[in-house]
Amino acid sequence: MALKPSEGELALLSGQDVLSSKTLTYEQLQLIMKTAAYYEDALVNKRRLFDMEGEIAAILFFEPSTRTRLSFEAAMYRLGGSAITVSETPQMQTSSTAKGETLYDAMRVIDGYADVIVVRSPKTGAGQESADACDHPVINAGDGTGQHPSQALLDIYTILKEHGHIEGLKVAVLGDLKYGRAPHSLVYFLKHYGCDLVLVSPPQLKMPEEITAEMRSAGIKVEETSDLKIGVAEADVLYVTRVQRERFPSLEEYELVKDSYTVNDEVVAAAKKGMSILHPLPRVHEIAVSVDSYPGAAYFRQAHNGVPIRMALLALTTGNVR
Amino acid sequence: MALKPSEGELALLSGQDVLSSKTLTYEQLQLIMKTAAYYEDALVNKRRLFDMEGEIAAILFFEPSTRTRLSFEAAMYRLGGSAITVSETPQMQTSSTAKGETLYDAMRVIDGYADVIVVRSPKTGAGQESADACDHPVINAGDGTGQHPSQALLDIYTILKEHGHIEGLKVAVLGDLKYGRAPHSLVYFLKHYGCDLVLVSPPQLKMPEEITAEMRSAGIKVEETSDLKIGVAEADVLYVTRVQRERFPSLEEYELVKDSYTVNDEVVAAAKKGMSILHPLPRVHEIAVSVDSYPGAAYFRQAHNGVPIRMALLALTTGNVR
Amino acid sequence: MALKPSEGELALLSGQDVLSSKTLTYEQLQLIMKTAAYYEDALVNKRRLFDMEGEIAAILFFEPSTRTRLSFEAAMYRLGGSAITVSETPQMQTSSTAKGETLYDAMRVIDGYADVIVVRSPKTGAGQESADACDHPVINAGDGTGQHPSQALLDIYTILKEHGHIEGLKVAVLGDLKYGRAPHSLVYFLKHYGCDLVLVSPPQLKMPEEITAEMRSAGIKVEETSDLKIGVAEADVLYVTRVQRERFPSLEEYELVKDSYTVNDEVVAAAKKGMSILHPLPRVHEIAVSVDSYPGAAYFRQAHNGVPIRMALLALTTGNVR
Repeated sequence: MALKPSEGELALLSGQDVLSSKTLTYEQLQLIMKTAAYYEDALVNKRRLFDMEGEIAAILFFEPSTRTRLSFEAAMYRLGGSAITVSETPQMQTSSTAKGETLYDAMRVIDGYADVIVVRSPKTGAGQESADACDHPVINAGDGTGQHPSQALLDIYTILKEHGHIEGLKVAVLGDLKYGRAPHSLVYFLKHYGCDLVLVSPPQLKMPEEITAEMRSAGIKVEETSDLKIGVAEADVLYVTRVQRERFPSLEEYELVKDSYTVNDEVVAAAKKGMSILHPLPRVHEIAVSVDSYPGAAYFRQAHNGVPIRMALLALTTGNVR
Repeated sequence: MALKPSEGELALLSGQDVLSSKTLTYEQLQLIMKTAAYYEDALVNKRRLFDMEGEIAAILFFEPSTRTRLSFEAAMYRLGGSAITVSETPQMQTSSTAKGETLYDAMRVIDGYADVIVVRSPKTGAGQESADACDHPVINAGDGTGQHPSQALLDIYTILKEHGHIEGLKVAVLGDLKYGRAPHSLVYFLKHYGCDLVLVSPPQLKMPEEITAEMRSAGIKVEETSDLKIGVAEADVLYVTRVQRERFPSLEEYELVKDSYTVNDEVVAAAKKGMSILHPLPRVHEIAVSVDSYPGAAYFRQAHNGVPIRMALLALTTGNVR
Repeated sequence: MALKPSEGELALLSGQDVLSSKTLTYEQLQLIMKTAAYYEDALVNKRRLFDMEGEIAAILFFEPSTRTRLSFEAAMYRLGGSAITVSETPQMQTSSTAKGETLYDAMRVIDGYADVIVVRSPKTGAGQESADACDHPVINAGDGTGQHPSQALLDIYTILKEHGHIEGLKVAVLGDLKYGRAPHSLVYFLKHYGCDLVLVSPPQLKMPEEITAEMRSAGIKVEETSDLKIGVAEADVLYVTRVQRERFPSLEEYELVKDSYTVNDEVVAAAKKGMSILHPLPRVHEIAVSVDSYPGAAYFRQAHNGVPIRMALLALTTGNVR
């Protein structure tokens, strides 16, 4: 049975914003993992929770992301709380920001309606801007090309659940490592654990040098390759992301590269025994459907881990873990 | 006072999907009616229910249908539960399926956020496809030209409430019987009861022969007519649906036919005493507004019956009737 | 500590619609203020409320207004109740009214799903039309160029909170006084209190003569000016609204006028000590951001007052204040 964190541990995030995976300390990271395990235990055993009864989360998606929105809402309801929601598409713009209002004003008003604010925006920096406007804790659920810490947190949680530990593992990260928000956030967390990294991408989509340098100076062993087979060879974890057509100068160049980064039965057969496969989803062609039946295919379990992780974030930042 | 079904009865739907009116047995149908009456009794007497406290329904409308969505949400809240909702228009497509994700993947992810899934989709077969992806029960709330069983269930429930029984009644079904999803689903349920059918439609919009044949072989007496007056003459129940302009080769042909299928004061005056009038709503011209004050005009009561019926479906499939 | 209203007082609004600031009596107004204070006390002291547990509000926005919608939802959740929501943009029109259904039919159906109905519509008169269709109480949350009483109620509540009383105050109302729904509703409430009015607007956007006449005949002293400095000179309350570009024959004429109605540090410095500044929000240029740090800048507090005011409306009309 998972244990409730101590009062001393809980103080590490109570009243705090969660805006970026770069600024979370290892102790805060550990606290989130512990709290998520505590809540997952309650979910599995169908223990009804009242930790946030009477409390309201404002879940504000100024850019659509159905699964992230629904998992934050589900997390809030599982804690006994309620949610008030904005879910906009670029075409809609129902919010008053369309009338010329600043994000600051809008957030400062909504801050008075809720106990915690979750914000997703196409605008980089919207997380920090919201936090400046709000007295209540703000959780950044993705701001443009910036950060999306709850995704990286559920990735770490998934590796811990699948393998029991991260230390000593070899983690292969595959796909668009140049622009991908998910791989960037993930490696910033992995830095805290003594694991090896294998970065697998087309040459034009390599991880930015300042990130790999930061990993290496933190003592992380980093290999880079453009060959999926080499990359997967000794990996314990394969973290797959999409290689988007838009990143290539022509459709031809994309088509050339695309199939060489698809995880299929052949790739899985050549992998180390017990390798887990993660993907932030949605997937398109990056993982063949036939791989779903492989026991190490963890991506749907990973998506489901979003609920306890977001429960932990909502309850920890508001000081409501009971 | 309505009685709670027995444990043996409840087992008939616990853990089951509700995808089609064709596959529900008479025993399951009776169980749903009994449970709806049990819950309606609680609603009328303002008894607060906790049957689904702490549970979450994912209510996913990939096609707009405001009233069906709201009545499922209301049903969930009346049971003490919570709802996470998607409400999309074709123009929006906020969900990740727009990015190329399969419905299977999307549903399998959401299955981890909720205890029961209600799905509405423009795609025929989406109900079954969702059920294949989900461990939790799936309720089909309309899939393209396919099925919409909760509508037909509330229709049956309304006839039972208005008349006390269905056996021996003469049920006239009016409108577009060729393409109409509601009339098709309804007659599949009526087949279980010893009632007579009168099918009233323009000649080009008659009920498909395979359906009338199936009714007749089940012992149902079926008359067909294109004359509303003849059809209504001895009916106990008049089930009205819309004749849509789009079904006719020209606006002229539609205009010619349209008025002859409008239920107005004259039609009501010629009807059998105590005849009830049902309509799945929304109505446009098919029933004159003046008919609303006729005591047998049951269509608004029918719409309200959607709440106890959907409470029954949500609580029965999840094994939560208490 | 704020006191709960007496049973006799509560009877003044139980089962009533709230459609217009014109038809609310002074006694009803006082009851709403007293109940809002009672609920705000609970919010501030984090007392969990169960006044509307098991009850449902249908919150129907057929026109977008994110902040009003969210504050009604928050109000319902703070009372322990639930909300079923429609939030449409003109482009969406997901509701069945798009299929040709009347508002009457739509509202009469939804009336069966909920215990109280909040409606916002671009159509003037939609509040009354909804009330005609519904057995449950209807709260008008803005109907076209008509009424928006909950905004004016929170304005009054804010003045009372900021100053302790309204009697004897000088209230300057600034902006588009010809078309503005907010200033019109506000002065109809102010009429009940012995305060002085200063109406400040460009000459072409003066308050309609029938309204000023009505104020004067109720004993209210009314001054009119087009000069902000004169208007503000002795004001205790400055109520700011937007002067919209669309109201002017040309952009040039608008630009000419615009800046002379901006409340900036200079305006504030010249004001009477303790003057409070209100604005229904969203603001664009009407109040300089630097004014936000002025202690009398009450507009964000005013927005937050929307929650207790809407709690009072929801609980009073349904007879649920406990």
